[in-house]
Amino acid sequence: MAAKDPLVITDKEEMRKWSRAMRSQGKLIGLVPTMGFLHQGHLSLVSQAHKHSNVVVVSIYVNPGQFSPTEDLSTYPSDFDGDIKKLMSVPGGVDVVFHPYNLYDYENQSKNGVGDGDGVVMSCIEKSGTGHETWVRVEKLEKGLCGNSRPVFFRGVATVVTKLFNIVEPDVTVFGKKDYQQWRIIQRMVRDLDFSIKVIGVEVSRENDGLAMSSRNVHLSPEERAKALSINKSLLRAKSAANDGQIQCEKLRNLVIQCITNAGGKIDYAEIVDQNSLEKVESIKGPVVFCVAAWFGKVRLIDNMEINL
Amino acid sequence: MAAKDPLVITDKEEMRKWSRAMRSQGKLIGLVPTMGFLHQGHLSLVSQAHKHSNVVVVSIYVNPGQFSPTEDLSTYPSDFDGDIKKLMSVPGGVDVVFHPYNLYDYENQSKNGVGDGDGVVMSCIEKSGTGHETWVRVEKLEKGLCGNSRPVFFRGVATVVTKLFNIVEPDVTVFGKKDYQQWRIIQRMVRDLDFSIKVIGVEVSRENDGLAMSSRNVHLSPEERAKALSINKSLLRAKSAANDGQIQCEKLRNLVIQCITNAGGKIDYAEIVDQNSLEKVESIKGPVVFCVAAWFGKVRLIDNMEINL
Repeated sequence: MAAKDPLVITDKEEMRKWSRAMRSQGKLIGLVPTMGFLHQGHLSLVSQAHKHSNVVVVSIYVNPGQFSPTEDLSTYPSDFDGDIKKLMSVPGGVDVVFHPYNLYDYENQSKNGVGDGDGVVMSCIEKSGTGHETWVRVEKLEKGLCGNSRPVFFRGVATVVTKLFNIVEPDVTVFGKKDYQQWRIIQRMVRDLDFSIKVIGVEVSRENDGLAMSSRNVHLSPEERAKALSINKSLLRAKSAANDGQIQCEKLRNLVIQCITNAGGKIDYAEIVDQNSLEKVESIKGPVVFCVAAWFGKVRLIDNMEINL
Repeated sequence: MAAKDPLVITDKEEMRKWSRAMRSQGKLIGLVPTMGFLHQGHLSLVSQAHKHSNVVVVSIYVNPGQFSPTEDLSTYPSDFDGDIKKLMSVPGGVDVVFHPYNLYDYENQSKNGVGDGDGVVMSCIEKSGTGHETWVRVEKLEKGLCGNSRPVFFRGVATVVTKLFNIVEPDVTVFGKKDYQQWRIIQRMVRDLDFSIKVIGVEVSRENDGLAMSSRNVHLSPEERAKALSINKSLLRAKSAANDGQIQCEKLRNLVIQCITNAGGKIDYAEIVDQNSLEKVESIKGPVVFCVAAWFGKVRLIDNMEINL
């Protein structure tokens, strides 16, 4: 199938106008929100979007609202031209790439309006001077797991996704289950705020050696990358142990923590939680997911594995 | 103009379907959110909605999400049949009355699903067992004024209005400036979350003797009602003093507090704040609004007056 050239839209009003024109033609709109620097995992989300909609919008926007000032916003990788090429390689391509400059600056939507006036993207919305002060919080699900070490992260994710929903007005949206907590939060938010949007979750895409795909993998040295394989390996081992009857989460956690630590990783968390509530469980009695975050050098990686006994 | 019979819709999906059908015909949809027990103030919002849209939806829903368990949810007055008649008396009537049973029960949308299963509307969402946990917060504007004595109030308002926006999908919404803080919060929320909705603010409607119209006025005894006139009287006096050169807010506040207290009212707050930020000011240098909340017996009333020197 010939790849088509996507329309690149940077303006919010233009984006909404496009979507409304599509809707008035009876077309179902799919939205894949991304922060760019796309990999095969993102492209699998686009493929899923095609299955559930007639036209596909991919948003590329590194959301300052989900980074704390101490986090890696300024070093978050980007490659817009490369992203467009990759999107064109997906069967069916994409219809629109929505690439806004700054979704928190209400006075100035142009490129010059990015960040705090000197062309640098702001890393802390509160300090941006734009007066943005509305936040969507999914109060229980945002706590625990990544919420512990990244207290403003899910507040920022839920808020920017709400903004994107209100700008793109999609019928379907697609999220990767690699960001498991994020996926559950968006599902819950869509239900609780009565968005008329179907949320599709897509399985984790992995490299051939099992490493979960992530835009941050590019920051790993070859040595760190080799060590990082311990995450997926240990999760597979834990799943296998659970299938063999080990349902005590303390044992399974120790297995994973030891394996990653021995490989040279530094555990942020390794928790077995209920798939829906994301509450910790002591022993596996229903569908759970084993969620891990660990540092390899300066790179924090996350991964997870559902266990359905 | 002959009043038309409004279509009463209780189901979320049916409501959205109606709105989308209207939009596909090129019609602008106006939404007036209310908690029912309508008075002339509400009807003036409906008239404004007609000016800015082609079809008008009035929602009637007493939102448990904005009441704390100790507040007056269970005694909040209602008169659905009377409301319909009043709406029919407005020139042009209304097209739809959206009257959902319970916007926080995701399993059961029927009347039997109201509240916690025994037919009683829940007064605290957290205890409802529906798992609702997503809240929209306008973090600065929600503090101060009514936010001090009613800490969950604006969280509940912003959230239910977001839900109504997502269900009704209006182009225009109309709020009364009697609830000044609420109006500013909704304006800010619409901007910050990129809703494509125009927010119209309508001046306070007053009885002939100056009392601001409120559904809660029905709870006032004749004596309390007479005393409550001190709110508007004192605000008018303060405005007049300001026009005469008294720009020290402490003096103006004392004037109002004394007048209401002398009449037998109990002040909750009496503050002069910036019209946009709602931050307290010490002297009047720009557009401000004098906001008052006071108790008369068991009834808490609010009122306000803009001062533009």
